[in-house]
Amino acid sequence: MEKPIGDGIRGVFLRHPAVSLGPTSRLQLETKSNYYIYSGETMKGTERTQLRRLPNRGSHDIETIHGILDQAFLAHVGFNVNGQPFVIPTLFGRDGEKLYLHGSAASRMLRELETGVPACLTVTLVDGLVLARSAFHHSMNYRSVVAFGTARKIDDPEKKATALRVISEHLLEGRWADVREPSEKELKATAVLEFTVDEASAKIRTGPPLDDEEDYDLPIWAGIVPMQLTRGTPVSDSRVKPGVEVPRYVRGSGI
Amino acid sequence: MEKPIGDGIRGVFLRHPAVSLGPTSRLQLETKSNYYIYSGETMKGTERTQLRRLPNRGSHDIETIHGILDQAFLAHVGFNVNGQPFVIPTLFGRDGEKLYLHGSAASRMLRELETGVPACLTVTLVDGLVLARSAFHHSMNYRSVVAFGTARKIDDPEKKATALRVISEHLLEGRWADVREPSEKELKATAVLEFTVDEASAKIRTGPPLDDEEDYDLPIWAGIVPMQLTRGTPVSDSRVKPGVEVPRYVRGSGI
Repeated sequence: MEKPIGDGIRGVFLRHPAVSLGPTSRLQLETKSNYYIYSGETMKGTERTQLRRLPNRGSHDIETIHGILDQAFLAHVGFNVNGQPFVIPTLFGRDGEKLYLHGSAASRMLRELETGVPACLTVTLVDGLVLARSAFHHSMNYRSVVAFGTARKIDDPEKKATALRVISEHLLEGRWADVREPSEKELKATAVLEFTVDEASAKIRTGPPLDDEEDYDLPIWAGIVPMQLTRGTPVSDSRVKPGVEVPRYVRGSGI
Repeated sequence: MEKPIGDGIRGVFLRHPAVSLGPTSRLQLETKSNYYIYSGETMKGTERTQLRRLPNRGSHDIETIHGILDQAFLAHVGFNVNGQPFVIPTLFGRDGEKLYLHGSAASRMLRELETGVPACLTVTLVDGLVLARSAFHHSMNYRSVVAFGTARKIDDPEKKATALRVISEHLLEGRWADVREPSEKELKATAVLEFTVDEASAKIRTGPPLDDEEDYDLPIWAGIVPMQLTRGTPVSDSRVKPGVEVPRYVRGSGI
């Protein structure tokens, strides 16, 4: 049985994997072995988002999916041209239930996507290397979202500008207010797409390595090497006007 | 005219974009505006790897492509199931001209890929945010590789173990020598694929923002916010045997 979830991504039928958890009325965070398992406003899975392997790493929870999308700013978008899959990295923004992509009006990716072909938008946050005692149990701590959907072009200049602001603020909150906004000509040279998510799922692995019981006696180091995309010290452009300071929103470290 | 390049990725016809640089006998690094442009052992482009936009950000040079692949460890692999594109994050390894993927023998991605369907393997390294004075000229410094090809399953247990070592060493050099190697049963539960690259290209953006000349007078901060995937302090598993120290290869910071 499939039905929409009121406060989900628009048009999304979020479903939980067939082999996983039943629906509950609100988000619950459980710990089972060392994976966090999100249950919540979830529904039965379909073929394409069934999380076949290690289904306890999977989630179709809306808040989980939004949280991962919001911490990322780079997506890998997949689409076909004559049966050949393309995977292209691109920035994106989220505004409630809407995802936005942008680029040159001449971009092949955007020109393909705007025809409404089936697409897949994937976001991955790397959290750490998981080093077990056995080669077999090595893994990665990560959070990923795989979203299936279609895109359509936004033509209205005002809506385009709004979507561009969303992408900019998603990338770096506070920046938009400081910059020279796009001119009419620049807006024309920019293609902006709204990506409608039909179905999405999240996968999360967290916590220490899990070895076979007999391997815990081995004198081998095991543990986690945390990883994070971090910001370095801003480098001012050589032509910045005297007296213009580095804005506060670029001074923070960590993303 | 297309012909193979002797020391390239096996079976690869590396080509330069039609609108870009001519072939030269060895790698040259040029600077034009603020993009590094690689020319070198390059050839004429085909439809699918033509770098249509900003072709001076593009490269089909073998060393450039290998360098980006080697600094990354996470790829996003695209393939189709009944016309629906899937983009799945996965670890990978490179050994000379060969790329390897692995996962559970039950993995849907690997089971699809091993049928030899057209696939796309994309790797992206984020180097920084590029903040211009105008919204329009904001950008990202990055290095990416898009590789088209097909995969085939490796059945021979010895070759599988070798490929797994390649993936492990690609991820964290020195680790393989310390761990318990895969048992026969574990090898059976692991699918290992060799990805043959038919065609690949790299895109690179580097350097400061480039604004329209008249915008340089604006009192707006512009510059680069460098970004990097960094390693944190290793966290030992609670059951590591007394006296087992954190190995040197996990103590370094930066990736």
